[in-house]
Amino acid sequence: MSRFFTGTLSALKPYTPGEQPQDMKYVKLNTNESPYAPSDKAKEIAKEHLRELNLYSDPEGRLVRDKLSEMYGVSADNIVLGNGSDELLFFSFRAFCDEGMPALFPDITYGFYPVFAEINRVPYEEIPLREDLSIDISDYADKKGTVFIANPNAPTGRTLSIGEIEKLAASRPDSVVVIDEAYVDFGAESAVRLTEKYENILVIQTFSKSRSLAGARIGFAIGSRELIADLNTIRYSFNPYNINSMTLAMAYGVLCDEERVRDNCKRIAENRDYTASRLKELGFEVIDSKANFVFVRSEAIDGERLYTGLKEKGVLVRHFTKERIKDYNRITIGTREETDILIDRIRELM
Amino acid sequence: MSRFFTGTLSALKPYTPGEQPQDMKYVKLNTNESPYAPSDKAKEIAKEHLRELNLYSDPEGRLVRDKLSEMYGVSADNIVLGNGSDELLFFSFRAFCDEGMPALFPDITYGFYPVFAEINRVPYEEIPLREDLSIDISDYADKKGTVFIANPNAPTGRTLSIGEIEKLAASRPDSVVVIDEAYVDFGAESAVRLTEKYENILVIQTFSKSRSLAGARIGFAIGSRELIADLNTIRYSFNPYNINSMTLAMAYGVLCDEERVRDNCKRIAENRDYTASRLKELGFEVIDSKANFVFVRSEAIDGERLYTGLKEKGVLVRHFTKERIKDYNRITIGTREETDILIDRIRELM
Repeated sequence: MSRFFTGTLSALKPYTPGEQPQDMKYVKLNTNESPYAPSDKAKEIAKEHLRELNLYSDPEGRLVRDKLSEMYGVSADNIVLGNGSDELLFFSFRAFCDEGMPALFPDITYGFYPVFAEINRVPYEEIPLREDLSIDISDYADKKGTVFIANPNAPTGRTLSIGEIEKLAASRPDSVVVIDEAYVDFGAESAVRLTEKYENILVIQTFSKSRSLAGARIGFAIGSRELIADLNTIRYSFNPYNINSMTLAMAYGVLCDEERVRDNCKRIAENRDYTASRLKELGFEVIDSKANFVFVRSEAIDGERLYTGLKEKGVLVRHFTKERIKDYNRITIGTREETDILIDRIRELM
Repeated sequence: MSRFFTGTLSALKPYTPGEQPQDMKYVKLNTNESPYAPSDKAKEIAKEHLRELNLYSDPEGRLVRDKLSEMYGVSADNIVLGNGSDELLFFSFRAFCDEGMPALFPDITYGFYPVFAEINRVPYEEIPLREDLSIDISDYADKKGTVFIANPNAPTGRTLSIGEIEKLAASRPDSVVVIDEAYVDFGAESAVRLTEKYENILVIQTFSKSRSLAGARIGFAIGSRELIADLNTIRYSFNPYNINSMTLAMAYGVLCDEERVRDNCKRIAENRDYTASRLKELGFEVIDSKANFVFVRSEAIDGERLYTGLKEKGVLVRHFTKERIKDYNRITIGTREETDILIDRIRELM
């Protein structure tokens, strides 16, 4: 830290993203990327829609928003794009939280939420998950604040039903409920259709997981026209051209090949079942997941030892040091071949 | 605005970027883009360095930082990349300003500075330019705060000498001086070489202007290792994967064809002289500019009328409503052919 850094953020602890080592080729099961590259069809369509790069990108992202509008059955005015869903989450903390409106989220969830709160200097409260790591929405009932729920939750993979989300939003009409659906396409129910009825629900999704575009950086939020206008107020006060032209074109291309996206999700869900059963055979406890990862632990091997042991053997998984979940590892669902390598390496360690 | 939007930002007025109309083809001289697309050589090199998009981009941007390091003679630890230089400016307001350390910048400059201050809820003071729209650095002498200077300044195109910038930084060792060099490659002197000697100078540049990548969104900051670490603290608390893989590859490609960039800058500087002399022939006052635009006014035609008249005729220039500069228009330097069309259209209006 320099001596010029603001004292107001001196306690800020930045988010630690999953390792992206460049030193050797790993079986990379640590950052929930898709094992499948975007399709050739998507790339071809992208090429046809790419503008010359010396011109600014379209700050409205119309190409992509119009296509999403058609696919999700909402107006383009109900959609805003972000440089990854992280940017939209940041905007939401900025727009909908302040000293009088804290952020509320589970104690075990996407590790970026407390960081977003801190960098925006808004108070937050972490609401403990139940013993089985599921969310009890009644825990939020008496608390004032903007709620952030990942559904499926990370790193557990557990879901809330659409009925529970509706109940949560209906019970707190005077605050926003942000549903972070980064992993929704792998088997959970989306709350998008609730956004028409509830002006306080904001759904945030990403192209990084099911849509194979982690490296392109694009996410989107769907909500009432007013909530979206608020996020645009932040966006236009920060970086109006937040999405580059190549990414807009690629995202459009991928949306034009949804069949491939659905196939990929199906294959990943199948391999999730396979991975879970192989791990259970080895004695692992595997939390029931609807995401493209599983959260697992074993009495036979310490969580951190499993992580470091696998890394030495060329397999990256994600380990968290937080006390309550330090026995676990989060393992991304890759291809079946990757699962087989993972299982072999775990066997060697046990 | 929704009823959920934080009251702490209710007075926020977002930045208004230059129009990017999609309705018809304009001669677009309003957002200081380069008239030249990236070279084929740059694109070929980019292709060779593109990773598959299903994987996250390199959060360290090593490919680009290493190349910049070599070109600018600083260590890669002295460089951080942003999703456009706007993002790095935002980070700088967040990192180096607070209630006790206001932002200081000219009253006439890049219109985003007051917005960055407001969204970060930091106080700011606008220091009036001299009557001739030049910066007097002695005006900053007795004021506490982090200084933001665009050099060349926008929208005037006027420059400070490297000697003046050194004097400014040396005179205020306890606060950061941010030099926004978006337009430096068109004829001003860069302060990069001062960053080694002065730990309080932060230089921010962009690929959007001289490097023909406005649509790819990438900028960089150069400063002491500590200042750069501070910006990374903000970046990792906001969006660690802020630059996508395609942009990293394109930026690298463009850096590998610097000869083309220098040629383009030379052609633009030549056409700037040509444009200025043609405008002077028509009786315009043209401020001496070292950027890729000129800031002009005429007693014969009102600033706003010139802007709207040109727009009707298919030529976009930039008009600002701020009282002190409402007689002017900022005109981007495009190709000579574009200048000739501009001049013809202005003639028709006069």
